[in-house]
Amino acid sequence: MRDAYTDQLDSIFADLAGICRRVETAVGLATRALMNGNATLAERVISDDIEIDRARERVEDTAFSLLSLQQPVAGDLRTIVAALRMVSELERMGDLSVHVAKVARLRVPDVAVPDEIRPTMEQMAVVAEDMVSRVCDVIISRDVEAAIALGRDDEEMDGLRRRSFAELLSDDWTHGVEAAVDVALLGRYYERIADHAVSIANRVVFVVTGHHPAALAE
Amino acid sequence: MRDAYTDQLDSIFADLAGICRRVETAVGLATRALMNGNATLAERVISDDIEIDRARERVEDTAFSLLSLQQPVAGDLRTIVAALRMVSELERMGDLSVHVAKVARLRVPDVAVPDEIRPTMEQMAVVAEDMVSRVCDVIISRDVEAAIALGRDDEEMDGLRRRSFAELLSDDWTHGVEAAVDVALLGRYYERIADHAVSIANRVVFVVTGHHPAALAE
Repeated sequence: MRDAYTDQLDSIFADLAGICRRVETAVGLATRALMNGNATLAERVISDDIEIDRARERVEDTAFSLLSLQQPVAGDLRTIVAALRMVSELERMGDLSVHVAKVARLRVPDVAVPDEIRPTMEQMAVVAEDMVSRVCDVIISRDVEAAIALGRDDEEMDGLRRRSFAELLSDDWTHGVEAAVDVALLGRYYERIADHAVSIANRVVFVVTGHHPAALAE
Repeated sequence: MRDAYTDQLDSIFADLAGICRRVETAVGLATRALMNGNATLAERVISDDIEIDRARERVEDTAFSLLSLQQPVAGDLRTIVAALRMVSELERMGDLSVHVAKVARLRVPDVAVPDEIRPTMEQMAVVAEDMVSRVCDVIISRDVEAAIALGRDDEEMDGLRRRSFAELLSDDWTHGVEAAVDVALLGRYYERIADHAVSIANRVVFVVTGHHPAALAE
């Protein structure tokens, strides 16, 4: 009985990592759809999101069954509750990828991102996708150092967001209001994806150490 | 022992309602700060947010202690897990109010929202604040009908968001890129506050009936 229980607990984290990989794919495809004005890729991100939602439901069902049938305490309880929160955040990251894809789709055959601001937006997308990829690794490895490092890299995203605002509010901006609004909202979506990656990494730290990263840094 | 347990379960929902009222205040004050360019009110929303975060931690501690010491099953387990999720969403709604307040503060002594689009933005704020107020009532009453009604009213917010985009993308828009970006992001913040209110209402429906609202509507 105890073995089946431990297996289920491990399987939750394997499922979380699997969902995380789907999110990583969604962020990558949404970015390609955005940067190339590719409606087919955008549609794929939008329609594939249901798979992330279904996988979330399976993790929730497993977690509930562990909570009610096995009555875990202490560390195991902390792990299961953390898993429930992590899966909510992963689902949300999938939704944010869908938002990016929808902006891309809305502007097809044009590209929503003007050339001048493309390097900044591409870098935001690279940072976001890299953070998602690394948090997938952290979910599997439960490597506390790697998880804490992820939190520090969030500062790069903040810097890129500030740069994007400086670019679209400069006198050189000639692309009008619509493109500026697109860029501002896209920046927000990538920033939120990065925020969730950090939050998930922090939850892994809490599961492993019993402390929040802020407490460890003190 | 069982009585103390039931008391603790009830106290979690009273605490959630208390946090919800703080969020309602934050949304209202942030809106006044925004519409009047009032830096003092904006600062208050920003500094008071720590109280919402602390109240969240208290709810989490109570929920964990119930989960580990009382080993609840079935309905009680569902209730405690739902409470953990609801408190995360309430905290997030507080953060979104802080985002609104920060936009207000950034533009002081000016007002971020141009006169032409003021009616639409004010209506978005009214709808968001009203939805927060009603979800506070739902947390206390656990009134399933009222909770489901809240979900339907989210459509008004979607309509307002579309109207705000039509206004800032029209040829009549003379306020430039900065104001347009502010309005687009503010609209996003109010929309997300409304989304979270609906999500919390849906969780109450699930706690009371054991079914998600979508399943009940079928």
